Amino acid sequence: MEASSMRDLDVPTRILLGPGPSTAAPRVLRAMATPLLGHLDPEYLKVMDEVQALLRYLFQTENELTLPISGTGTAGMETALCNLIEPGDAVLVTVKGYFGERLYEMASRWGAQVDRLDRPWGQVFEPEEIETALKSRRYKLLALVHAETSTGAWQPGIAEIAAAAHRHGALLLLDTVTSLGGLPVQIDEWQVDIAYSGSQKCLSAPPGLAPLTVSPRALEAIRKRKTPVPSFYLDLVQLSRYWGQERSYHHTAPISLNYALREALRMVQEEGLQARFNRHQANAELLWEGLEALDLPPLMPRAHRLPTLTTPQLSPAIDDIAVRRRLLQDFNIEIAGGFGPLKGKVWRIGLMGNSSRREYVTLLLAALREVLA
Amino acid sequence: MEASSMRDLDVPTRILLGPGPSTAAPRVLRAMATPLLGHLDPEYLKVMDEVQALLRYLFQTENELTLPISGTGTAGMETALCNLIEPGDAVLVTVKGYFGERLYEMASRWGAQVDRLDRPWGQVFEPEEIETALKSRRYKLLALVHAETSTGAWQPGIAEIAAAAHRHGALLLLDTVTSLGGLPVQIDEWQVDIAYSGSQKCLSAPPGLAPLTVSPRALEAIRKRKTPVPSFYLDLVQLSRYWGQERSYHHTAPISLNYALREALRMVQEEGLQARFNRHQANAELLWEGLEALDLPPLMPRAHRLPTLTTPQLSPAIDDIAVRRRLLQDFNIEIAGGFGPLKGKVWRIGLMGNSSRREYVTLLLAALREVLA
Repeated sequence: MEASSMRDLDVPTRILLGPGPSTAAPRVLRAMATPLLGHLDPEYLKVMDEVQALLRYLFQTENELTLPISGTGTAGMETALCNLIEPGDAVLVTVKGYFGERLYEMASRWGAQVDRLDRPWGQVFEPEEIETALKSRRYKLLALVHAETSTGAWQPGIAEIAAAAHRHGALLLLDTVTSLGGLPVQIDEWQVDIAYSGSQKCLSAPPGLAPLTVSPRALEAIRKRKTPVPSFYLDLVQLSRYWGQERSYHHTAPISLNYALREALRMVQEEGLQARFNRHQANAELLWEGLEALDLPPLMPRAHRLPTLTTPQLSPAIDDIAVRRRLLQDFNIEIAGGFGPLKGKVWRIGLMGNSSRREYVTLLLAALREVLA
Repeated sequence: MEASSMRDLDVPTRILLGPGPSTAAPRVLRAMATPLLGHLDPEYLKVMDEVQALLRYLFQTENELTLPISGTGTAGMETALCNLIEPGDAVLVTVKGYFGERLYEMASRWGAQVDRLDRPWGQVFEPEEIETALKSRRYKLLALVHAETSTGAWQPGIAEIAAAAHRHGALLLLDTVTSLGGLPVQIDEWQVDIAYSGSQKCLSAPPGLAPLTVSPRALEAIRKRKTPVPSFYLDLVQLSRYWGQERSYHHTAPISLNYALREALRMVQEEGLQARFNRHQANAELLWEGLEALDLPPLMPRAHRLPTLTTPQLSPAIDDIAVRRRLLQDFNIEIAGGFGPLKGKVWRIGLMGNSSRREYVTLLLAALREVLA
């Protein structure tokens, strides 16, 4: 490609119904066009305080250390792990899909002694089996995915699992990437120790920030480390000095993304958490009904099915890639394929945040009827 | 703070003449309001190719592995170090200011055996003294800051230093955070092995991306690692699979920031590199002349003075903080103070990218005349 031939940016307007990013609201996109402030400007420090207050509301927590990490959801996952893990620490990772696998890989890379508890993709864990595993060894950390984006599984019993972890001296890490803002995430009520998400899923802000919250118990564990966190960029104690009272320089915050996140969080607050969860549930039910009628039954049983991410099963007659290509080319609709053991067997349809809309459900079902006819 | 009391985002329009972010052009900010694409959408993959082509032009390189890291300049620094360092590797860090110190700290955190070569803040290195230090031990990596943001020092002789590094078996890492886009950075001509920058300095895109380029020699060293890179998020081999032909999922790219970076890079290309460097130099010279007239002589001698970041020395009579507060409150101008040994002794005035404008220089000097009167 010749760099000199580059035209004005002119991209199609997609309807984003994959696993994220979801479609950002115009007011959220517009917020990013706000002129930049310096990252230590008193007016920007106010924006930071506001973002933190809104994130605490969203996470339903009073954790002081609640902030957006300056990276995507994957950076949030990495932050949680690399701050808590010192080489040789025992960690138990529950794996029931791709993001559990990723937690396992990351924890291993950070030098933990990692044990894994597996369930086939598409299932969830019973709190009892997790507690049994917790008895086998003194774990520092238990890692669990709340909403598994690869399968559509909604893990229940978080409060029971947290209690079990604490009984056995472990902290609970909860991945809320595909749940936060779309279904209840009650950090304090459940006693979760560290949780993270991504800005581009059920919050419908642009990708690039990872909301994260840390309990006093987890922060104490971090402060007691014997070795420094290898990652300077993701070091939570250093970050807490920038986001807390000291305001000491650490890195240049992504100002524009924080403007957008603030606007997206205001939308969450205007709608109200419960109303927002109800909307996600109602639109998902419409989708499920339509998918059943199209002979695309969701993989997950109703009791553990995420309203934010649905995985319809494909009959062997369906050409996965061709159908998705037609949805994109003819209807500007993005949905995603399965991966790992579910590749070619399911699609992944996200109804998250601003993408959870009745008109999008109706359009998607009508388009599928046409393409599959 | 009550989350419920949050008003519409309404921030003052600052003139950003600190060490970054610089003032983004309206067309760059506007690009971010473009609706999101999915991170694997064929239309987005085109945007990625375009960003890479433009970055190669900017870095003056043919390195295939040239891409923006999904984090700020600090994440770029971390990416360079954590991919090249394995525990126990010998690294030589040259320190002549705060960002050299940061390289030293980061390299230590990643487990390297780090030696340092120091110069007082405000000086630069002679290639000969670096070569002497390179002879003392077999180093894997030599780290050097091209434009030291804490002092305003412009390190000369990069090609000679790279040649010396290679003669002694070391790779050269070059921090180009405050140089890229403001003065010549010739990666291939100089034979630099890995270099990174930040989007919000001389490119005047919003903060949140770190342009980075990796020579085939450095990539080979990364591929020969015996241990995995502890950071999954910053793992260059994995990132090369997303940015290269495979397009395999790694993390959700910050789509909007890449739109903005593309637009900022198009502006670089439209202006042309040499014209851009000349503009930075001409505006800096105007500033220097005006500062001398105000008895604020730049710290750096002319031969090693950055056009992008100037550090005028303050006479003891000047109240550092009060003057900067008045510039911000009365004129909406941001400049920064010194830090470390230069705290209270210098200011840091950036004329970077879109902030390098004759009218800003004239305004700043007039405002200073008024405030200091």
